[in-house]
Amino acid sequence: MDNETIIDKFNSITGIEERKYISPELKTSDIAHFAAQKAIDDAQVNPESIDYIIVAHNFGDISSESKHIDTLPSLASRVKTKLKIQNPKCVAYDILFGCPGWVEAIIQAQAFIKAGMAKKCLVIGADALSRVVDLHDRDSMIYADGAGAILLEESGQEGGILSHSTLTYTADNEAGFIFYGQSYNVEQFNGDKFIKMQGRKVYEFALNRVPAAMKHCFDEANVDIDDLKKIFIHQANKKMDEAIVKRFYRLFKKPMPDDILPMNIEEFGNSSVATIPTLFDLVVKQKYKGHFLNKGDIILFASVGAGMNINAITYQI
Amino acid sequence: MDNETIIDKFNSITGIEERKYISPELKTSDIAHFAAQKAIDDAQVNPESIDYIIVAHNFGDISSESKHIDTLPSLASRVKTKLKIQNPKCVAYDILFGCPGWVEAIIQAQAFIKAGMAKKCLVIGADALSRVVDLHDRDSMIYADGAGAILLEESGQEGGILSHSTLTYTADNEAGFIFYGQSYNVEQFNGDKFIKMQGRKVYEFALNRVPAAMKHCFDEANVDIDDLKKIFIHQANKKMDEAIVKRFYRLFKKPMPDDILPMNIEEFGNSSVATIPTLFDLVVKQKYKGHFLNKGDIILFASVGAGMNINAITYQI
Repeated sequence: MDNETIIDKFNSITGIEERKYISPELKTSDIAHFAAQKAIDDAQVNPESIDYIIVAHNFGDISSESKHIDTLPSLASRVKTKLKIQNPKCVAYDILFGCPGWVEAIIQAQAFIKAGMAKKCLVIGADALSRVVDLHDRDSMIYADGAGAILLEESGQEGGILSHSTLTYTADNEAGFIFYGQSYNVEQFNGDKFIKMQGRKVYEFALNRVPAAMKHCFDEANVDIDDLKKIFIHQANKKMDEAIVKRFYRLFKKPMPDDILPMNIEEFGNSSVATIPTLFDLVVKQKYKGHFLNKGDIILFASVGAGMNINAITYQI
Repeated sequence: MDNETIIDKFNSITGIEERKYISPELKTSDIAHFAAQKAIDDAQVNPESIDYIIVAHNFGDISSESKHIDTLPSLASRVKTKLKIQNPKCVAYDILFGCPGWVEAIIQAQAFIKAGMAKKCLVIGADALSRVVDLHDRDSMIYADGAGAILLEESGQEGGILSHSTLTYTADNEAGFIFYGQSYNVEQFNGDKFIKMQGRKVYEFALNRVPAAMKHCFDEANVDIDDLKKIFIHQANKKMDEAIVKRFYRLFKKPMPDDILPMNIEEFGNSSVATIPTLFDLVVKQKYKGHFLNKGDIILFASVGAGMNINAITYQI
């Protein structure tokens, strides 16, 4: 196949037209900091009042010259340094949980709030997959860089997180579906490793497992399916995501509503933990592609990725 | 200095006589699995009833042939695979929090229990520092490999975690005190990176910050200092740990009791997140070096490390 045919075929399967890569002088903790600063500005909170900084990522910091993953100290400590927060009571840690890491960090933040350990949590998802792509692997065409953040706060008001659900599948060797492995170009093998996946298995796993997990979460919230306004699903592949959401609605014996699924994968690719918060930000602020949210709207976050992990949150704006 | 003089001097400062390194065929997730299996056996719980598997580490899996940190999928997913747990509701994730990661994972597990999200949490600390030591750096002499685990369960009984405290210091560039950096041998520089520290700054930070943090935690528990039976402190350096505990007692205007501080750093070195759980296991089971614990005893866990993070837990057996 020539290049153009590959690109057309790739686009028809994944929906991806372009991707964003960070510039060579940046690392994941830098873009995590940019997203964090914007979330603080948007929420108009005093940074010194933040109880937790949680960074979800999967590859630490990797400089553009080296293939070395750097996880010491945590990216959360690096972000806290860049934010110039003085208060030592602001606890900064990282979570590794595959692409569902950002959604899981929200669930953890809520646990700290429920347990009386926190009132304000800054939850960041950031990854730079461009630093771990194998140029000899067509799957690399989906991966992108990105960072998104949210300030989750105890409000005392109705709404917020109505229900959540998390699953980790490992019994059928799912831990090997998305992994860090060697280049497909064995001649150039020099010990460097890259993000790799068993694409067919990931696809089948997602279609078989995610719709039921989303329904389980949504049912816990005890709201009507017709009141669900938008689904923010981790954007790995447009066709796959649409198929998952169609199956989710089939479980309620309903067709998938036309305007339920905002997506920006066309422009942004699969940016790991960042696909959901970056899209959510666009929809909330910009009525992105005609999608918008009003106070009181019920939405569903859902993600699937390395682990293999699946999670979901029913949220009321 | 000749080798013997260096070893004598090193021993007199750090207390370390020997260290354990894992064998070449093993990785961090393997020893994390061994510790997890022992904790499950000791607790006599059905593995399928575990709600969370949390693995605290700092360098992922690194094979003995490569210097590459591998963090995808999470080590928790690898451990869950090895434990052959079928239940997908058992959530497996990793936390990066420097050497205090294991203590912090206990605090997170307690949050999930308090928030009604879990009843049983398997909390593992594992690192193989032998895979990231720079042979041209004398600080390397302190680092060791290890793994420890605990099964934290909601019992409904009195005791357990009485109080906890966590601090992340970054305002004075503490994030750079312990880091992943280049070899001291510039001639052999090939891009590989190693665990590095600014030893003097770490020492001063620990002595200045940790005693007050321990006291803050202990005061929250509202028990008498004379009732404190043992302190399990992260073992980075014997002299430093003793100085911290002396200062802690000075804050109560008391001398440090003779039998308060069990240590195994002489035999085990500084095994990162594993120093506390491996020592606790020895004391609980073996009356290690005359140290033992009885039902109802009050103990204090405390750790300090990369981030820079400090945390403590007051616990009643």
